Amino acid sequence: MTELPAQVSIREVGPRDGLQNEAPVPTEAKVRLLDALSHTGVRRIEAVSFVHPKAIPQMADADEVWAKATTVDGVRYSALVPNSRGAQRALAAGFTEIEVVVSASDTHNRRNVNRATAESLDDIAALIGQLHSQGAVAEVIIATSFGCPYEGDVDPARVAGIVDRVVADGADRVSFGDTTGMATPRRVREVVTAVRDRHPDLPLLLHFHNTRGTALANVLAALQLGVTDFDASVGGLGGCPYAPGASGNVATEEVVHMLHDLGIDTGVDLEALLAAAALAEEIVGRELPSGVLRAGPRTRLVS
Amino acid sequence: MTELPAQVSIREVGPRDGLQNEAPVPTEAKVRLLDALSHTGVRRIEAVSFVHPKAIPQMADADEVWAKATTVDGVRYSALVPNSRGAQRALAAGFTEIEVVVSASDTHNRRNVNRATAESLDDIAALIGQLHSQGAVAEVIIATSFGCPYEGDVDPARVAGIVDRVVADGADRVSFGDTTGMATPRRVREVVTAVRDRHPDLPLLLHFHNTRGTALANVLAALQLGVTDFDASVGGLGGCPYAPGASGNVATEEVVHMLHDLGIDTGVDLEALLAAAALAEEIVGRELPSGVLRAGPRTRLVS
Repeated sequence: MTELPAQVSIREVGPRDGLQNEAPVPTEAKVRLLDALSHTGVRRIEAVSFVHPKAIPQMADADEVWAKATTVDGVRYSALVPNSRGAQRALAAGFTEIEVVVSASDTHNRRNVNRATAESLDDIAALIGQLHSQGAVAEVIIATSFGCPYEGDVDPARVAGIVDRVVADGADRVSFGDTTGMATPRRVREVVTAVRDRHPDLPLLLHFHNTRGTALANVLAALQLGVTDFDASVGGLGGCPYAPGASGNVATEEVVHMLHDLGIDTGVDLEALLAAAALAEEIVGRELPSGVLRAGPRTRLVS
Repeated sequence: MTELPAQVSIREVGPRDGLQNEAPVPTEAKVRLLDALSHTGVRRIEAVSFVHPKAIPQMADADEVWAKATTVDGVRYSALVPNSRGAQRALAAGFTEIEVVVSASDTHNRRNVNRATAESLDDIAALIGQLHSQGAVAEVIIATSFGCPYEGDVDPARVAGIVDRVVADGADRVSFGDTTGMATPRRVREVVTAVRDRHPDLPLLLHFHNTRGTALANVLAALQLGVTDFDASVGGLGGCPYAPGASGNVATEEVVHMLHDLGIDTGVDLEALLAAAALAEEIVGRELPSGVLRAGPRTRLVS
């Protein structure tokens, strides 16, 4: 633990990944949350996705949310797109950092987009070309990297093989999604090691869910491997579609709270983040699964 | 992570520490839970406490619970006592492993027992003598070892100093309580290192709460330090008195689930433990904060 990184970069995914997995909320609430998060010191925010409104009504107003949000200098905003049509909308809206998704597990990929992983990878190759031709950065998110709810364990060699392919196709970054909370410190080590062995200089982002309580243990294991990029969702926004009642995304404030205690700089003002988490809770109208939001930071004393 | 212990011993504290911090439940329910836990493969169970019924009505029927429980060979059962009177009751009931508590923080100790830590340590010295004279093993639990909700950080040197004292007074074991969930991987390393430096051969037990999401990260950090003894509470039984709504004890099934995935043997049958957790939830009549109980183990696939 003496060799942990000095700095970590958090990407706040609550406005997109979080709200996309909650009951729909008004446009104005989304804008308020996005604006609050822009002032927490977090340096990257996944703002919206440009998906078909019939498939995902939660993001039907993505253009309007983005037009009304007040961006802050120094914060990088990204959008997720499912296909070429979405990419055009994202580019037209002014995004220059764009994410596309593929599942490491064939079964999960078929359930999501009715295609095998290999077919989605062909689509993604074309998408990367489209994004690059318009000057945007392309990130590939590999879902179910740490396990698939239908297939079980996913071979880290398969995950690394997908990385090989998308890197060959020009992906600027790759992130690894723990889609249904199957990651453990062991799986984190296996996936990171398998990918690093073949792509030592590729920036890796890890995205954990806290479905089975392991999220911060996974973050710790990843820090010990030198990983410095993590997704997290304010308040733990974003339910878990496969396990009703289970928590989904790890709460940003829980990640930041632990990182700061470990002496790791994130640039985030934890109190401002907690205010944003309280706003997130108000917006969705349910208690969010964030211990630090409930109990306060360990430094907040009982008088 | 390649140097993790091969085996870990879990002490199940749900019947005592868990139920003591829930609304009172019937004697018969306590017996059912205790009996279910005795058949999970867990090797140690904190069964009851012998405290004053007016102070802690949840444990008023300790003698009856213990008399009705069916003990299983190979399982070690312990009881917690606050004082000499409690120790007499525990010994009379047949317990040979007995725990006493002191807070590392003066303020917390005063709030609990209206005494300074040093005064409680004098009482404990006498209690250890009483227990040893009747052939029982004495464990000292040091509460607020990783932080105090009133005072904040607790100097690990102070915790180590308390260990010095109780070891000198004959304590057979020492455990370290994260009473209000203030432990982090950093605090775990600091406390374990401070104690180990002075008592390299003393068995250490760690007791974590998941109030701020760090429990399994703390377990991982402790495993990396070679710690092999942990408390945990089935289903996460046991609220957190200082932070209403916050989770208290880390759920046994979350600890076991992660340990097994790390290839660490616990002797526990996770499915039997999950059945006991479901029983615990039924008994207290509220949803317990256990992700593995909610979502199932990562190996349980969606068909």
